[in-house]
Amino acid sequence: MAHRLDRLLAPRSIAVVGASDRSNWSHRINDALEVIGYPGAVHLVNPKGGTAHGRPVHPSVPDIPETPDLAYVMVPEKAVLAAMTDVAEAGVPAAVVLSSGFAEVGAAGRARQEELADLARKHDMVVLGPNALGYVNAPGKVALKPFQRGEELVAGSIGVVSQSGNITVAVINLARSFHIGLSYAVSTGNEMDVTVGDVVDYLAADPDTRAIAVFAETFQDPPTFLRACRAARAAGKPVVVLKVGRSEAAARAALAHTGSLVGDDAVIDAFLHAAGAIRVSSIEDLLATADLFAHTGPIRGDGLAVLTISGGTCDIAADSAADHGLRMPDFEPATATRLAGILPDYATVQNPLDVTGAATTDPELFARSLALVTADPNVDVALAVHELDHHAPDGEWGRRSLESMVDAARAAPAPAVFVNTTVRHLSDRTRAVRAKLAAPFVFGGLDRVLVAVGRLMEWHRRPHGDPAGRPPTVELPAPRGRWSEVTCRELLAQHGIPVVPGQVVASPTAAAAAAREFGGPVAIKVVSAGLPHKSDAGGVALGVAPDDVAAVAAEVLDTVRHKEPGAVVDGLLVSPMRPDGVDLLVGVVRDPAWGCVLAVGLGGIWTEVLRDVRRVALPATHETVRAALLGLRAAPLLRGARGTDPVDLDAVVDVVTRFGELALALGEELATIEVNPLRVTGSTVEALDAAVVWRTTN
Amino acid sequence: MAHRLDRLLAPRSIAVVGASDRSNWSHRINDALEVIGYPGAVHLVNPKGGTAHGRPVHPSVPDIPETPDLAYVMVPEKAVLAAMTDVAEAGVPAAVVLSSGFAEVGAAGRARQEELADLARKHDMVVLGPNALGYVNAPGKVALKPFQRGEELVAGSIGVVSQSGNITVAVINLARSFHIGLSYAVSTGNEMDVTVGDVVDYLAADPDTRAIAVFAETFQDPPTFLRACRAARAAGKPVVVLKVGRSEAAARAALAHTGSLVGDDAVIDAFLHAAGAIRVSSIEDLLATADLFAHTGPIRGDGLAVLTISGGTCDIAADSAADHGLRMPDFEPATATRLAGILPDYATVQNPLDVTGAATTDPELFARSLALVTADPNVDVALAVHELDHHAPDGEWGRRSLESMVDAARAAPAPAVFVNTTVRHLSDRTRAVRAKLAAPFVFGGLDRVLVAVGRLMEWHRRPHGDPAGRPPTVELPAPRGRWSEVTCRELLAQHGIPVVPGQVVASPTAAAAAAREFGGPVAIKVVSAGLPHKSDAGGVALGVAPDDVAAVAAEVLDTVRHKEPGAVVDGLLVSPMRPDGVDLLVGVVRDPAWGCVLAVGLGGIWTEVLRDVRRVALPATHETVRAALLGLRAAPLLRGARGTDPVDLDAVVDVVTRFGELALALGEELATIEVNPLRVTGSTVEALDAAVVWRTTN
Repeated sequence: MAHRLDRLLAPRSIAVVGASDRSNWSHRINDALEVIGYPGAVHLVNPKGGTAHGRPVHPSVPDIPETPDLAYVMVPEKAVLAAMTDVAEAGVPAAVVLSSGFAEVGAAGRARQEELADLARKHDMVVLGPNALGYVNAPGKVALKPFQRGEELVAGSIGVVSQSGNITVAVINLARSFHIGLSYAVSTGNEMDVTVGDVVDYLAADPDTRAIAVFAETFQDPPTFLRACRAARAAGKPVVVLKVGRSEAAARAALAHTGSLVGDDAVIDAFLHAAGAIRVSSIEDLLATADLFAHTGPIRGDGLAVLTISGGTCDIAADSAADHGLRMPDFEPATATRLAGILPDYATVQNPLDVTGAATTDPELFARSLALVTADPNVDVALAVHELDHHAPDGEWGRRSLESMVDAARAAPAPAVFVNTTVRHLSDRTRAVRAKLAAPFVFGGLDRVLVAVGRLMEWHRRPHGDPAGRPPTVELPAPRGRWSEVTCRELLAQHGIPVVPGQVVASPTAAAAAAREFGGPVAIKVVSAGLPHKSDAGGVALGVAPDDVAAVAAEVLDTVRHKEPGAVVDGLLVSPMRPDGVDLLVGVVRDPAWGCVLAVGLGGIWTEVLRDVRRVALPATHETVRAALLGLRAAPLLRGARGTDPVDLDAVVDVVTRFGELALALGEELATIEVNPLRVTGSTVEALDAAVVWRTTN
Repeated sequence: MAHRLDRLLAPRSIAVVGASDRSNWSHRINDALEVIGYPGAVHLVNPKGGTAHGRPVHPSVPDIPETPDLAYVMVPEKAVLAAMTDVAEAGVPAAVVLSSGFAEVGAAGRARQEELADLARKHDMVVLGPNALGYVNAPGKVALKPFQRGEELVAGSIGVVSQSGNITVAVINLARSFHIGLSYAVSTGNEMDVTVGDVVDYLAADPDTRAIAVFAETFQDPPTFLRACRAARAAGKPVVVLKVGRSEAAARAALAHTGSLVGDDAVIDAFLHAAGAIRVSSIEDLLATADLFAHTGPIRGDGLAVLTISGGTCDIAADSAADHGLRMPDFEPATATRLAGILPDYATVQNPLDVTGAATTDPELFARSLALVTADPNVDVALAVHELDHHAPDGEWGRRSLESMVDAARAAPAPAVFVNTTVRHLSDRTRAVRAKLAAPFVFGGLDRVLVAVGRLMEWHRRPHGDPAGRPPTVELPAPRGRWSEVTCRELLAQHGIPVVPGQVVASPTAAAAAAREFGGPVAIKVVSAGLPHKSDAGGVALGVAPDDVAAVAAEVLDTVRHKEPGAVVDGLLVSPMRPDGVDLLVGVVRDPAWGCVLAVGLGGIWTEVLRDVRRVALPATHETVRAALLGLRAAPLLRGARGTDPVDLDAVVDVVTRFGELALALGEELATIEVNPLRVTGSTVEALDAAVVWRTTN
């Protein structure tokens, strides 16, 4: 299947525009294409003609006898538009623009970039950049990014996309340092045309790519990026994302050097999660997670086994696994018996398994143990912490040990990988032996790999289907400003969200009558559209005894008139008081770029002091909503901690999910909708208060 | 000053007992001593005599013409006792016993080890092991642990002590891989005599050691270890500890008696913290923390600055710093002006600072920026993320860049170190250039170094003085079993802990009379020593209206007699109900090996659901207790969250500190003492309930 980026990322021929013996960059690109062994034709272009790098130079692109698939443009900023016009008019379908001096330098640069974009659109040209460092395509042997000799990419199955050229370099350096194989490494620069999402989409379909690693400062085009993540997920490939700008300081820093606002990180995070992305916070974790998946594929359960030849390492593994919430199941009795049969008497058969120093004399003991452990039905992934090959990788003993281990890992029913005790430099000798055997050694040391294991387990468990069903159709009275509580209550009730009974009355006397009807103490609230904080305005009285209602209602009206003389008061809402329960806060915020995010939390101190809130992107399934509720630190209260009855979680999940559907149906004019509190008492779930605010203020 | 371990760890001459050309280990030890260039005499010993490694072999230790300082014993387990007897009788003052087959293999081995210990004690011999891998002393050039040629230790200032030989090897390998300098690396093995604490004490006094890294599975001798940590702290050296068994301890803690808040690991953790140790959970963090300190020394404030030449790296740094709670202060206006004067126009002067790609053309721009940043009074430590020297470490440009940076770091008023963007292998070329300049490059990549920065800042902030003053003297009525609440109340009141008023009465009628005296609703509790859960036994009634007291009191007595027929009831305690406030839980558990640990937490859901408890080792200062209270997640409640008045924190700190002093004064028979709740309402602090349990059950 053809992809829009085919010519860009897998060109059959390349024009290097700006080639010159006097340009350092020209030498480096020329060397890079030579080093990687690019099989296509490379045409050098420079208006000055002559020769460069010992080859003839064409004065312009139309002078090239064929139409190249791709132009690599590295002329000074002032010459870019002319050069690109030349490229476009020659019918070249794709270009990489290395030149900087565009949107990243301010308003004048943005205008220049706009001109360039117009040109590209007019000619239907695919453009990477400007201000893009270029890319490497390892399987296709295309290197449009400098390399020094001896610093080649290790070809492998991780596709890397980054907005920052410096970070692309850092990722490639880390990968080379630890022999991590990459399929592609693409720098998108200013993203005038091609964005990280486009490249992720390309990699999702690329047969050489098994896992995708993304560095992003901002998402220019959220829908494309999310669609690409879903395509990758559907292809069984995780997209691991290092998205910066989470902190206030980083948001400020990003604004300084990219000129773009990064958006609300909690919103982005919810959408990335829903689209199946795995979020990390360091370059090491980015590659460790992708590298682990490249070797294990999906980890289909949560049973982790660790094998070592050191008791101390077993202890570290057990502690770290517990820190990261990883389960290390007991082996089945049959496995334990078989292990006891091959291990020395003084060994203790348990998980993590200390194969003992006997593995330093019997070269196949470790492999036999690994075969038994990975055959255990409780084990979903096995980490073999084994470094003997560091010491004797090419001796007879080392060869047998390593070969038997690799054979055992390959034949293992559950994924098995080899991990170093710590992150560690590989000698050329060790590297060569491992490469020859294609041994599944992963990057990171036990410490970092355990974190990556947890991430891949969570990724596999995460609901991968999109929510089915269509949101309800909603007729809206007046989607403007801040609705009164009464309008909000009607909206909720119409769409199946239970609301505490209430009667709107016009006078204190009518309030007293309404209260008598309900019996027992009541809540009295002023009804006023546009009044943002009715409590602060004195417009709320709770637990009012029936006999006091008339007087209190009059006082409420007086106070509001006094404190908010401009407020339009449409009456009073009288509701019965409800028994104590668990108070939830449920809200939806619509982000104009990303969409709706549902936030759930427990009220009171839980939100005020602990910020105990979970967010999910909408649409969301019952399953996702349930996971969010159970992911709250306060979740034990829902399960009936403190001796209280547990609440009817199914009923809560149902109401919250329906609330999300309703919010989504309210359309693009919605700013926020909130129920606070949603009171849950046993199996009763009821909205006690609600607010809706629209984007259009009036 | 002489240290007990001088002869062991810095011997002037060595007898290698068990030397033989047929022993692989003998070859390896012989090689190791040669490779490191041990300057003293090495005497080979084997009952068979002859020669080994081309040198004459003495049949026994007394045959050696001098008395060696140290014997390295590597004979088979069966021959150890005889060999050690020979060593001891020759007057050798210290020995390393490599041989295994002792306490680590079970009861018979333990008996053999006991014999060996008797021998050592009799001859006042210092023994490392048995089952100890040996050690390396880099400054003294002693290697009693195998090395392969080309795998020498990098000499430096981190002293390493480990109980596990395998972990010692892993630490040494990691250090060598990343060019981290070690002073010592000592494996203590079975710790028949010399423990990790003894070695830490030695390193605390060693002039070549600046930071100490410890791996421990168990502490044989807590007081010695803690004393050694304090000695290190007094010498200005951090002790970084990777203590495993946290998760196992957590499991044990889960089984522990309910109401006991302190698990084993929590006890150890509290004492390690009090003694000035820094706890980590991976080998990488162990070395990264020690290595950072070895280069920075103490970090005297919390102001972090980061400099890079990449906007993307600035973003990652800002996010990670926020994740780890690190503060990146703004630069002073004067600093900002000076930076703006040297940086290109398009640079944004802020922290983290992007020096920009201009640093790739001007070799001294980075150094000049570093000098300005480290001179800023808001900056307490600067991380320079700079990898240009990877690309051109020995060209003219690279040399100038690197030299100017190193000069700037050396002259910097605040500590400044160089960090890679990610953990990364160093080429031999890069390594040699850096080593020549003694450039302060630290291990770990930005990701790990930021964590280490946070640890060192916390370490410096941590109160380092020992609590002054002596605990009160306490006369105890009967330190056995479980005291009645009345006895507990008296103890607290006598020692200045405010207790809610209460009257002990013998009958329901008397209870009613007492309640009338208090006025308002009361609490009624059965008084019974030995009754562990008086609420569960129905022995408590709260909020009883004065008129109901007689009836309720009778019911309480009846219920307890029915539910706990064996309980000895000594009457009823009547107390006035108190207004709501913040309920604290304050308890002390005495661990027989380590001592008393004070636990503070907020009651109710905070302890039940969130396990929001902080622990401090006793004795503790007001400052430490205050830090523990403010470290609670619920601390905002103490500061007056939710619109309530803040509590009088000084008064709370004072009562809790006094409670700790009292607990300590109760002596070694104490099991636990607890006040739950300690109610705090504004400036009133009062114990509403208390319990004391003694170790001796009856």
